[in-house]
Amino acid sequence: MAEVVSFRMDGSDRGEGPVLMERRDGALRLTLNSPPTNSLSIAVMEQLHAGLRLAEEDASIRLVVIASTGKVFSAGHDLKELTAHRSDDDGGRAFYERSMRLCADLMLAITRLPKPVIAEVDGLATAAGCQLVASCDLAICTDTATFCTPGVNIGLFCSTPMVALSRATHRKQAMEMLLTGETIDASTAKEFGLVNRIVPKQYLDQVIAKYASVIAAKSPLTLTIGKEAFYHQIELPVSEAYDYAIRVMVENMMAKDAKEGIGAFLEKRHPVWTGE
Amino acid sequence: MAEVVSFRMDGSDRGEGPVLMERRDGALRLTLNSPPTNSLSIAVMEQLHAGLRLAEEDASIRLVVIASTGKVFSAGHDLKELTAHRSDDDGGRAFYERSMRLCADLMLAITRLPKPVIAEVDGLATAAGCQLVASCDLAICTDTATFCTPGVNIGLFCSTPMVALSRATHRKQAMEMLLTGETIDASTAKEFGLVNRIVPKQYLDQVIAKYASVIAAKSPLTLTIGKEAFYHQIELPVSEAYDYAIRVMVENMMAKDAKEGIGAFLEKRHPVWTGE
Amino acid sequence: MAEVVSFRMDGSDRGEGPVLMERRDGALRLTLNSPPTNSLSIAVMEQLHAGLRLAEEDASIRLVVIASTGKVFSAGHDLKELTAHRSDDDGGRAFYERSMRLCADLMLAITRLPKPVIAEVDGLATAAGCQLVASCDLAICTDTATFCTPGVNIGLFCSTPMVALSRATHRKQAMEMLLTGETIDASTAKEFGLVNRIVPKQYLDQVIAKYASVIAAKSPLTLTIGKEAFYHQIELPVSEAYDYAIRVMVENMMAKDAKEGIGAFLEKRHPVWTGE
Repeated sequence: MAEVVSFRMDGSDRGEGPVLMERRDGALRLTLNSPPTNSLSIAVMEQLHAGLRLAEEDASIRLVVIASTGKVFSAGHDLKELTAHRSDDDGGRAFYERSMRLCADLMLAITRLPKPVIAEVDGLATAAGCQLVASCDLAICTDTATFCTPGVNIGLFCSTPMVALSRATHRKQAMEMLLTGETIDASTAKEFGLVNRIVPKQYLDQVIAKYASVIAAKSPLTLTIGKEAFYHQIELPVSEAYDYAIRVMVENMMAKDAKEGIGAFLEKRHPVWTGE
Repeated sequence: MAEVVSFRMDGSDRGEGPVLMERRDGALRLTLNSPPTNSLSIAVMEQLHAGLRLAEEDASIRLVVIASTGKVFSAGHDLKELTAHRSDDDGGRAFYERSMRLCADLMLAITRLPKPVIAEVDGLATAAGCQLVASCDLAICTDTATFCTPGVNIGLFCSTPMVALSRATHRKQAMEMLLTGETIDASTAKEFGLVNRIVPKQYLDQVIAKYASVIAAKSPLTLTIGKEAFYHQIELPVSEAYDYAIRVMVENMMAKDAKEGIGAFLEKRHPVWTGE
Repeated sequence: MAEVVSFRMDGSDRGEGPVLMERRDGALRLTLNSPPTNSLSIAVMEQLHAGLRLAEEDASIRLVVIASTGKVFSAGHDLKELTAHRSDDDGGRAFYERSMRLCADLMLAITRLPKPVIAEVDGLATAAGCQLVASCDLAICTDTATFCTPGVNIGLFCSTPMVALSRATHRKQAMEMLLTGETIDASTAKEFGLVNRIVPKQYLDQVIAKYASVIAAKSPLTLTIGKEAFYHQIELPVSEAYDYAIRVMVENMMAKDAKEGIGAFLEKRHPVWTGE
């Protein structure tokens, strides 16, 4: 059905490496590919950053899907890599700062990307892996997917993951995951607001393709306007949020795509977007 | 059961026009009455504003119910009206600013009205119609009610509706409605926190009447204090919210209605409110 | 199974008084013990404050459980005590300020305590009693527990309880409880995010003991870091929250317990915490 083009960031065409990149159905698929843990090592986070930059620059990419190979979606930071730097002159401090900053910037880059980002979760998402799910605009998971923030078990509280988690769920729900480190199943994650949809594994590709085609049918400009507005307004007092959103709506109304979209709707025909 | 008085804002007694007004069970019912879309045209929004002002000024009105006639609760902004203004000298900009400001002010007026406002949703609530539901203090819907923010389908992202929607639900839930434009059913809306209660249509009047009578039995002063405090404190850091809420509680304790209410409770009798 | 030591704050060993204190499974149990209402009188609130101070200072206490005797978890402020002060020269104002401040400070002290606090709710939690549940980090209740904020029925809106309640649940859910004063059952409370878990009464002790042992197995330092970070970051804009959380994570990584915990994990052995 879909044209699938796999490639590496170095321009070669092999779909291999710690993060696979493929185009499918208008989506850029970034697949974590260092099983069994799919850790967010420096190399992996840099590749994800590179993938997001590519998605931003390439107009043919309409959305991003972050997926994984193997049984673990992502186990978060690479503990071996972190531990190796304990022998640095500063005991690892500079490296930890770099790792945590790179990771937080990745999460913020997802929300700042002017295109939707969907987490496709099949397996266990833990720590910064769970944060990655929480940071995506949408998350779709299989019925065997599980989620946890178990840093408390190893002496390293999931303090950066909590930033995304506590903004996705109710406080007590986040707190239970964070304080106990215990694992929740897919249906609890949906109840908590951490994922949007649970899909049996055999239908996962089909459902993701459906989301991709639904999103690819929209005006890219409109999605860009809306996603940016969402994360901006949500941090404002409601009255300021309206002042801001009114300006956004007026500019949006003046755009060609709104004229075309509203016209097409009133005339009962399909719109043709120009992205302007 | 209830004395029903229908009237128009011009003082005539006909229960007709784009917004019907009736008094029932202590409630002012504002019924959107321009089916099939029940759009929020300038005329409709001005009438709703007028209804809210009336409710504020008239002590016999204890709450407001916003309902509709026909199969659509409200389709939001009037797209034909918006489109007609594209031929204005400024391409519609001034009119769009006026429309969006009037609409945002309507939503804010609902939260600022010192009396509870209930959305009674029977049918489809879309775009600013969905925002209207999200903006009411409470929402009760029939089991066939549906909700969506489909602006993304017509090139005009629901950026003002998102202000209310994203404050009512979890982020990913709002984001799914906004990015896909797809429709959710009543039970999903309840799960999302967008509505309080789902009622089979044949019991809708009865349930609304029950809510109205429960609310009308309270001290009007107490409801005014509490509703204002709710929307004020929710935007403050928790420590400041407590500083503020303590002042509210102390003033509330000093009011006659608190003395009467607490006294009646301790003496196991019904309170008689003076609203002071 | 557990060593149970009951004592009063005056150092005597009798497990009696308005707030019972017991040590069990590493937890300090503070049991509201003035049935039938378990009101939060000045005396009770001061004892709870004293209990929290003790928990903070005593390294052998790993968490706090707030429980109750009788059929009411807590009915909130002591209405008789409040009413008695109406005959003060100032009509009670100074006393009401003192009561409300003491109560708000108690709720804030719970979130500021560097150890987890669990509400164990068996019975009715109303008004400031419901606020107490909302303010704990976690809440576990029996299947017959109920919750309400009924101040509106007695002329005294639950304006301080709403501060905690509206930060635990969705807005419309909090608003329904506050405006109607009606009671919700345990399963609705779980749906609202007000409690984490519902347990049949015969298993309550066992489940609380399980939580206590799970929490007591963590590094105390790590729990302290994480709980403080949670309530601090949740009030910041997301970008500032990450700046802050990165600093927290780096300091946490430099702590001995993180080195031990991560090392033990990689070496597949049990960690031994030093709390440093």
